[in-house]
Amino acid sequence: MQLQVALDLLTLPEAIKILEELYDVIDIAEVGTPFIISDGLKAVTEIKKKFPSLQVLADLKIMDAGMHEAKMAFAAGADIVTVLGVSNDSTIKATVEQAQAFGKRIMVDLIEVNDLQQRIKELNGIMVDYVAVHTAFDIQSSGMNPLNDLRKIKEAAPKARVAVAGGVKLETLGAIVKENPEIIIVGGGITGRPNKRETALEMKKIMNH
Amino acid sequence: MQLQVALDLLTLPEAIKILEELYDVIDIAEVGTPFIISDGLKAVTEIKKKFPSLQVLADLKIMDAGMHEAKMAFAAGADIVTVLGVSNDSTIKATVEQAQAFGKRIMVDLIEVNDLQQRIKELNGIMVDYVAVHTAFDIQSSGMNPLNDLRKIKEAAPKARVAVAGGVKLETLGAIVKENPEIIIVGGGITGRPNKRETALEMKKIMNH
Repeated sequence: MQLQVALDLLTLPEAIKILEELYDVIDIAEVGTPFIISDGLKAVTEIKKKFPSLQVLADLKIMDAGMHEAKMAFAAGADIVTVLGVSNDSTIKATVEQAQAFGKRIMVDLIEVNDLQQRIKELNGIMVDYVAVHTAFDIQSSGMNPLNDLRKIKEAAPKARVAVAGGVKLETLGAIVKENPEIIIVGGGITGRPNKRETALEMKKIMNH
Repeated sequence: MQLQVALDLLTLPEAIKILEELYDVIDIAEVGTPFIISDGLKAVTEIKKKFPSLQVLADLKIMDAGMHEAKMAFAAGADIVTVLGVSNDSTIKATVEQAQAFGKRIMVDLIEVNDLQQRIKELNGIMVDYVAVHTAFDIQSSGMNPLNDLRKIKEAAPKARVAVAGGVKLETLGAIVKENPEIIIVGGGITGRPNKRETALEMKKIMNH
């Protein structure tokens, strides 16, 4: 089980400072969508160069032009690129082809997919590496969380490699770990804490038991 | 009727060179999604600074964190920011609030929305400025084009201010103009031509008749 830390509303120096605390504890550094909007893919390149032992995920949330956008991100040094589950199958397939060409990976973000179980069956033929259940930031305050979605996916596709994102905290981690996802994605639950390294270490301990 | 030119797979110097040819002919310069991924929002800032008479659209295709991402783009100089129609209503509302705070505008991109007529009715309560019917680049080769979608929107919401995108060319422009959209978005149909300025002038002539 891998721990991915999402770096969102940060400058590159701030992100690097956080990763210096975390790089030997976590598995995947996510360069979040707002971070890429702000800095462009050079943020991915710089982070991969500075922390070559970390996997770097570029959270592009690709919706169209799958070939071009995935290619740009892999060429910039990303190990994993995200595409939206609500996008057209042609777009997702085009990103998967680029991943195969680079020997890298695609994660499909299922944010706002209405029928998760149907979509996961459709995706089964496209050979994506991971599917992410993801409660949108903009609806987290309504009390939604990704645990039920994770269970639905596991029921429909027991072998799917699933990532979980959306408001994950130390307090809610135990219940998620029980469902055995492949990747747990944490943003503010680590980066918003004063004791980031200790929080990440504690999380890894819960994940490995 | 306004002409928007989409600048996608370009470097900033290339985009500026194209806009030097076009800036007094077109109405809106779109900094496309791949361009923002590559360069970050500084591309928006630089283009707005160099061509202050042009409206600049940042094609973020926002899917989550509507407040943060829209705010970043407006602060960087964008006049119009895009949000995805497949995103949660909370996300779209958050972008509209930012547009109102900055005195700027939101365009909802209806790419991959299944039931256009239902979605346009839902959006009616959110006070978005424009809705864009958009045939994904990744399915344009299948012969799909946005004309039927434009007709559907006009039927369901005759007063909606509609933008049209997806493979628009000089040859297909006449049929689109007849449906009276507010904005026509052209990418390769102008930027891929050797005679960009003449093509844009010809298009404006068709749009104004």
